[in-house]
Amino acid sequence: MSNKNKAIVLSSGGLDSTTAMAIARREGYEIYSLSFRYGQRHAIELEAARRVAKALGVKEHLVIDVDIAKIGGSALTGDLDVPKARSEQEMKKEIPVTYVPARNTIFLSYALAWAEVLGASDIFIGVNAIDYSGYPDCRPEYIEAFEQMANLATRAGVEGKSKINIRTPLIHMSKAEIIQKGTELGVDYSITHSCYDPSPGGSACGECDSCLLRKKGFREAGIPDPTSYTMK
Amino acid sequence: MSNKNKAIVLSSGGLDSTTAMAIARREGYEIYSLSFRYGQRHAIELEAARRVAKALGVKEHLVIDVDIAKIGGSALTGDLDVPKARSEQEMKKEIPVTYVPARNTIFLSYALAWAEVLGASDIFIGVNAIDYSGYPDCRPEYIEAFEQMANLATRAGVEGKSKINIRTPLIHMSKAEIIQKGTELGVDYSITHSCYDPSPGGSACGECDSCLLRKKGFREAGIPDPTSYTMK
Repeated sequence: MSNKNKAIVLSSGGLDSTTAMAIARREGYEIYSLSFRYGQRHAIELEAARRVAKALGVKEHLVIDVDIAKIGGSALTGDLDVPKARSEQEMKKEIPVTYVPARNTIFLSYALAWAEVLGASDIFIGVNAIDYSGYPDCRPEYIEAFEQMANLATRAGVEGKSKINIRTPLIHMSKAEIIQKGTELGVDYSITHSCYDPSPGGSACGECDSCLLRKKGFREAGIPDPTSYTMK
Repeated sequence: MSNKNKAIVLSSGGLDSTTAMAIARREGYEIYSLSFRYGQRHAIELEAARRVAKALGVKEHLVIDVDIAKIGGSALTGDLDVPKARSEQEMKKEIPVTYVPARNTIFLSYALAWAEVLGASDIFIGVNAIDYSGYPDCRPEYIEAFEQMANLATRAGVEGKSKINIRTPLIHMSKAEIIQKGTELGVDYSITHSCYDPSPGGSACGECDSCLLRKKGFREAGIPDPTSYTMK
């Protein structure tokens, strides 16, 4: 038996969640990584999440099927086109079509269920309020409200046992700061995947919001970008 | 186009959720019923939910696959035995093994996603704090916290548009009061299903917590119980 505290880490196989996982590992948690198959156009994310789980030595990696494509309402579940080559101004103007309704709420709810079964005290999620492109469920006030609800939802809450903490170590960091932090912690970003619209072979498009933010992050961090982009 | 406000109603095909749906219908909502396939022992629930959706004339009935059996930790997803013939004292003593970790949180999260896509203002859930057998996620303080979180999670929350209301019309009613209310509203309880451990043919066991509470409810309401029980 390990004496380490357990943490669930939500993992998309992307840059942010992988950095959040490296931070959890550095803090000494035994890590349980959780990914979701949700009718993404890009199952490539799941391959990246598996590589990351292996590279960071997680205790268990679980993939949950999430049936949100049936509900619709997002470019990421197949209804709408992924926007390309937008300026940062445009990204911040409105909630983008890549927003998946209630996605983080659904993901955190599964993490909460697993945390309760494992007796984990912490759930790490790589949300970011700087480069978040206007997603409502990446804001600090949302995360605080989820944590409060989580502590009323569970046995721990009723029995007055350990509290569940929703941990968002990246929430106030720029993309460049995230990349610097992960690089310090030894993250190999070449195994991560950020693109909303990759080629069938897995190359990043280089033009969606996620690729543009990733490129800019490496540029500003002064760290070479190991990503293979279709459009430089 | 209908001018009615839309409501999502969580439906298990059971007595409580069916009564909640009848109340939503009486209030004039256009109803979207939502059920979950979550590795229950009893897919019989889903048949009941479909019968109820038809009987109450819902606009759309959606069944979502929820992969919580993979997470484990409950008698209702197959890990543990369903307790039988317990006294009410015993039921209230502790959180029972039929508790599914974070279940209502996961269910309400999907409802929230669908509400956002449809533009529905209300989500009805038939939770009950009287006969709730100690489930943490049936308490009023939990529901309030979920509602608060929901309004920060969504576009509506960011854009200051319509608020999401989590409606729990049964929360302070006894089982007998629920049955009286539903009967007034014309609910045919013979099409509903409550048992945690039905026979392969669909008969209610008559001995699990859910059957015992249902029997007692009809008895106290002074209304004949239309349920076919294996054990009278």
